[in-house]
Amino acid sequence: MKNVKVVLAGFGVVGEAFAQLILDKTEFMAEKYDLSVSIVGIAGASKGSVLNNDGLPLAEIIGAKKAGKQISEVCDGEKNLSTIELIEKAKADILVEVTPTNFVDGLPGTKHMDIAFDNNMNVITVNKGPVALDYNRLFNKAKAKKLQFKIEGTVVAGTPVISLIEKSLAGADISSISGVLNGTTNYILCEMEKGLDYESALKQAQELGYAETDPTGDVEGHDVAGKVLILANAILGADISYDDVSCEGITKITSQMVMKAKAEGNRYKLIGEVINGKNVKCKVQGDEVAVKVDSALAINNLASVKPVLVDSNSFLGSLTGAQNGLVIDTDILGEVCIKGPGAGGRETAFAVLSDLLSIVTG
Amino acid sequence: MKNVKVVLAGFGVVGEAFAQLILDKTEFMAEKYDLSVSIVGIAGASKGSVLNNDGLPLAEIIGAKKAGKQISEVCDGEKNLSTIELIEKAKADILVEVTPTNFVDGLPGTKHMDIAFDNNMNVITVNKGPVALDYNRLFNKAKAKKLQFKIEGTVVAGTPVISLIEKSLAGADISSISGVLNGTTNYILCEMEKGLDYESALKQAQELGYAETDPTGDVEGHDVAGKVLILANAILGADISYDDVSCEGITKITSQMVMKAKAEGNRYKLIGEVINGKNVKCKVQGDEVAVKVDSALAINNLASVKPVLVDSNSFLGSLTGAQNGLVIDTDILGEVCIKGPGAGGRETAFAVLSDLLSIVTG
Repeated sequence: MKNVKVVLAGFGVVGEAFAQLILDKTEFMAEKYDLSVSIVGIAGASKGSVLNNDGLPLAEIIGAKKAGKQISEVCDGEKNLSTIELIEKAKADILVEVTPTNFVDGLPGTKHMDIAFDNNMNVITVNKGPVALDYNRLFNKAKAKKLQFKIEGTVVAGTPVISLIEKSLAGADISSISGVLNGTTNYILCEMEKGLDYESALKQAQELGYAETDPTGDVEGHDVAGKVLILANAILGADISYDDVSCEGITKITSQMVMKAKAEGNRYKLIGEVINGKNVKCKVQGDEVAVKVDSALAINNLASVKPVLVDSNSFLGSLTGAQNGLVIDTDILGEVCIKGPGAGGRETAFAVLSDLLSIVTG
Repeated sequence: MKNVKVVLAGFGVVGEAFAQLILDKTEFMAEKYDLSVSIVGIAGASKGSVLNNDGLPLAEIIGAKKAGKQISEVCDGEKNLSTIELIEKAKADILVEVTPTNFVDGLPGTKHMDIAFDNNMNVITVNKGPVALDYNRLFNKAKAKKLQFKIEGTVVAGTPVISLIEKSLAGADISSISGVLNGTTNYILCEMEKGLDYESALKQAQELGYAETDPTGDVEGHDVAGKVLILANAILGADISYDDVSCEGITKITSQMVMKAKAEGNRYKLIGEVINGKNVKCKVQGDEVAVKVDSALAINNLASVKPVLVDSNSFLGSLTGAQNGLVIDTDILGEVCIKGPGAGGRETAFAVLSDLLSIVTG
């Protein structure tokens, strides 16, 4: 049986869910792929770190975390290493980087990834910051060393958007990708349609754990802007920065606007969209005007986040609650649409597992 | 640049569209994958056959076909070979098998595929008959010779359902797959909702080229049953036969039933469904009752085709006209849904291209 060794940087919700998923899927992976996965090192922010290149006892470590103990208390291995030291000392094939997202400078995620590549590890991440800010450099560094840099979980949790486009639609020319990419705002807009005002809907989203205590990143559209940036750079081959994404959130949408839309059979959705600059069609007042653009995404507003009125019966209109969905516009197939969960620790950990299987089984 | 050689059995709508797609995508494949594709042999039913292991001039051959000429008239090569002789003599990496579907015994498609495997070629097909009737044997034969047997185009044309499940959802346990898998019947049901009676809607579908002159295969559900069988055997690892699929078409659906459903916010859809016998949950009168089944799909009605009332605002309810869509129920992500075109020569040829890129680029 093939064994793959993983070092885990970050042991919050997603890191723990990934460790649990590796436990839960032990039999599945052995039967289906003749594969075993060992986690040899874990570095968390509050629960300490531990490295044992023979493999760590996951059930005990997850139990320790749940009990509020340091994870190093329940197993043998090298303890009290910094995350960087742990990655450097780990004899692993893959770094799974799931530390918190930082859209300002991408740290410490970017640093962890650089060290992993320097030590000949593949990298899987769900950390949006480094991918949004530094994808092209990291990808090229990996490629030069014949390593893989996998990012499925950065856009719509485990719903397989990146691999769908990169693998299944490999033969297609993508002209645009648009969609509902944030569950919190979609939930708020749906609740407003049921009669809640914005403040009450936001409060409910916070109570359900969808929205953060400081909801700015969601409701102002910054989270979606990061995902749009990832789709542009990682999928459509652009090289744009965060400032190139025009961004408007949902805070100006009033109950009155939502109800008027409803009466007309429409819904507001916070839509992230990226149009492929290589074969752009700009929609100008309902007509399509062909615009030739020399470099991908040279025009600022080709990557955008904004509330858009859509038909309630359309695919995007049909996404309710915290559902996410994308419309991928292709040359040969026209629109291909995919929807699934856009958040959740276990769902996001599934994206890491998908990337791992892609690295190992090709 | 890597060159891959293809022999093409079948030169009808899909075969011609594939040749055209290879022409149209020459630059795309060179730039994106450093790949060139040569078609070295073509065998059609009515337009003759030609083999030239140095590669055939596709533009001239497509032109000849459109002009009603024999394709061998416009190029050098060995002519008047039977399809079997042509496959045997072709120095090709891949057989693209796109002869007409035969659900009775799978011939001549199955024979062509066997010969290709015997001659160490990979096989890509959109031919439902051999895949529905003989998937497991053909797959195992390919596997024993370390060859690939790719079938993306057999289920929903180019919409990437097979690769989505096999690659992107590789880490998931699939409990069921259900969906709208036939454009003709979906079109008819949608037109009935607009006020046409069944006969008029069928006539309109025939005029638009969706339905055959003899529409039995579509309206009685046989086409969907074939696709359900493919999903069961090729994707869910079952080993069932056509007779194991319970099958009811749309011919008993009246305008009155459609209008009553509409008034209640529902729609009839012809749903093909396969439930994974390994972890089956039988839905009994709204409640879920766990049923343990020893062998996959041992219970006859786990693979079925029948008209089902669905909520008009649901994902399946939202599929209009000739659209196809699937709901894939997974252990970790819950429902993942995909929709796209389910028919069309160029769309189906795209599935062949996807399979080819998967074989060549991994």
